[in-house]
Amino acid sequence: VTTGRLEAFSDGVLAVAITLLALDLRVPEIDHGSLWHELLRQWPNYVAYATSFLTVGIIWINHHAALRRLRRIDHTGLILNVVLLMTVCVLPFTTALMARYLDRATGSSVAAAVSGGSFLVMSFAFVALQRHVLLARADLANESLSPEARMAVLRRNLVGSVPYAAATALAFVSAYLTLAICAAIAVFYALPSTTADAGALE
Amino acid sequence: VTTGRLEAFSDGVLAVAITLLALDLRVPEIDHGSLWHELLRQWPNYVAYATSFLTVGIIWINHHAALRRLRRIDHTGLILNVVLLMTVCVLPFTTALMARYLDRATGSSVAAAVSGGSFLVMSFAFVALQRHVLLARADLANESLSPEARMAVLRRNLVGSVPYAAATALAFVSAYLTLAICAAIAVFYALPSTTADAGALE
Amino acid sequence: VTTGRLEAFSDGVLAVAITLLALDLRVPEIDHGSLWHELLRQWPNYVAYATSFLTVGIIWINHHAALRRLRRIDHTGLILNVVLLMTVCVLPFTTALMARYLDRATGSSVAAAVSGGSFLVMSFAFVALQRHVLLARADLANESLSPEARMAVLRRNLVGSVPYAAATALAFVSAYLTLAICAAIAVFYALPSTTADAGALE
Amino acid sequence: VTTGRLEAFSDGVLAVAITLLALDLRVPEIDHGSLWHELLRQWPNYVAYATSFLTVGIIWINHHAALRRLRRIDHTGLILNVVLLMTVCVLPFTTALMARYLDRATGSSVAAAVSGGSFLVMSFAFVALQRHVLLARADLANESLSPEARMAVLRRNLVGSVPYAAATALAFVSAYLTLAICAAIAVFYALPSTTADAGALE
Repeated sequence: VTTGRLEAFSDGVLAVAITLLALDLRVPEIDHGSLWHELLRQWPNYVAYATSFLTVGIIWINHHAALRRLRRIDHTGLILNVVLLMTVCVLPFTTALMARYLDRATGSSVAAAVSGGSFLVMSFAFVALQRHVLLARADLANESLSPEARMAVLRRNLVGSVPYAAATALAFVSAYLTLAICAAIAVFYALPSTTADAGALE
Repeated sequence: VTTGRLEAFSDGVLAVAITLLALDLRVPEIDHGSLWHELLRQWPNYVAYATSFLTVGIIWINHHAALRRLRRIDHTGLILNVVLLMTVCVLPFTTALMARYLDRATGSSVAAAVSGGSFLVMSFAFVALQRHVLLARADLANESLSPEARMAVLRRNLVGSVPYAAATALAFVSAYLTLAICAAIAVFYALPSTTADAGALE
Repeated sequence: VTTGRLEAFSDGVLAVAITLLALDLRVPEIDHGSLWHELLRQWPNYVAYATSFLTVGIIWINHHAALRRLRRIDHTGLILNVVLLMTVCVLPFTTALMARYLDRATGSSVAAAVSGGSFLVMSFAFVALQRHVLLARADLANESLSPEARMAVLRRNLVGSVPYAAATALAFVSAYLTLAICAAIAVFYALPSTTADAGALE
Repeated sequence: VTTGRLEAFSDGVLAVAITLLALDLRVPEIDHGSLWHELLRQWPNYVAYATSFLTVGIIWINHHAALRRLRRIDHTGLILNVVLLMTVCVLPFTTALMARYLDRATGSSVAAAVSGGSFLVMSFAFVALQRHVLLARADLANESLSPEARMAVLRRNLVGSVPYAAATALAFVSAYLTLAICAAIAVFYALPSTTADAGALE
């Protein structure tokens, strides 16, 4: 299978998932008092929204870079891609969960762990897809990437999972810490030239 | 009509429908007690989500394989494709129905039968589309598939409907059975080399 | 502007709008009694869903056929296309409105008139787009369509609006009548060879 | 990176965001009284919907025109594009906020300022993307645009932000004024030949 329609479908799913993140931004209902105050009180929603949006945007960029290396894809690759998309599509749910419970006395650690964990699972799904197309089925590539270069890409992907593991574990220290780490990861990858792929992208 | 824009539209609808499945994952509202416990109580939603997501992903793969065989498509083919998409787009509803009623005393059989039945109807709609382009309008194909090969593809699609019929009928024994069968079907098709199309796909 | 990205954006909007139609299929909440009975009570939702889904599917087919005639499109054409999409995107709302009020003592006529009227406005928006690209800017076409052929296409589009006008007006006789007419229109255009465009489509 | 898949992803996000605007059109629940009256009472929702829909449609047209000038895009450009999409995806929220509070005694100014401000931020995000591809990375262009022409495009984009700044500031005079200005901007850009880009578009 050529990768054209795989890209189209993946782009579609990522585009819908990234847009659905905004569905958790709800119009507050006030009877009296200040709307401004009420909107500010929802700040965890905005931070969580921006973090997840940027993260999915970066996943899209990386997904794009990964598929560009392929000439075609096999059944297992298609299924691994579906699994990756499945982990992305739960992000609106886990993001909303973290935002809702962030400043509560009960449940904030669990909510943050689930949210950080969903990013971790997503990064593992990406590594699994990469591992398949880079190692198991190296014949699918459309360019002659040396085994060393393949391992380097895969190692970089795997290293990218580590901060999410930390963010998940630290949820039991503080939910705010989890959110801060996830936001920092997103900003880090958004910065120019910090991603090793940036050069390769062009 | 060439199949390019048909693919784009179908990919779009499938991408939206698959993403909307996650809308039934709701942030639980707890006043006291454990959020962890509450999240675990929602396990039917997660299983139903994963099952339907994988199923729609596989439908997308099969749809892709089916359209690749076509050079162009006629009006009836377009309408049969719209009908197929119509059956896919109700899956978020029927999936949510099954998840909500799975462990209830009342309604679980009906909910499971409707959910299994929606997969059955979807597989029939796929067979109807395939039957049209493989038999009725064999001239639409872009490759010379022998009549035997056409019948083989169609028979395989039809056989694929049987487990869904069983899952629907067994809803009146146990809703859990229906969910288990549907999940097993999805996993079966996701496994490498179990789909006869897997080879043809490449 | 070439029509490639216009098609992609239009396909995307139509794909999302058609899928959102299913959001009005709600999981009923029963405390006791029969879920089966409760699901059957929602039949107006299913009929309205199928009607609108098929209608948007046909709009997509016609939109596809219309754009295929174009080599490029101007600013006014782009805006008329946005207006057409705007009328399509309200259909989930007006469809839900009709379904909710169909069998109520109060509001059924208004709801049906609004729903029928939304189809009417959509068909007018389609005629406006067609009129622009067929008459006002005939130079945008990618094929030499005779003035007579252009007028014939436009006349056919305009005639297609008449049943929607009837459906809207008859809402004040009976909301059921409006739904029946809209459903009949959708089925009529879905039938093979009733659409004059069917031949041209190939 | 070539711009093909960037366009596909951006089109997808814009298509979903524009369609989600209609989710704030809610079926009113009446017990007695006139449904017609109740639907008319929701007029701020309709005006806000039409305004935002047209605005996103125009953003899409401008985005399309901007990307057409590019041969490829770098990492910073991709990120700036994700940020632009992030600002577009909050529009369903801010549009709903304005519509809900427009005719209320409390909160209308804040809601209108947030809504006008979200358009302003979106136009700044567009300018930032344009500034990057037109000035910072002029080598990404696929056509030889003179420095003067580049500055002219950028100046036009920047001037386009001014009315949104006014609309935001005037929210504290009257929320209706903000809505009127935003609607007028959308209509202005929709008119033929008012957009300087209109000519360039062809």
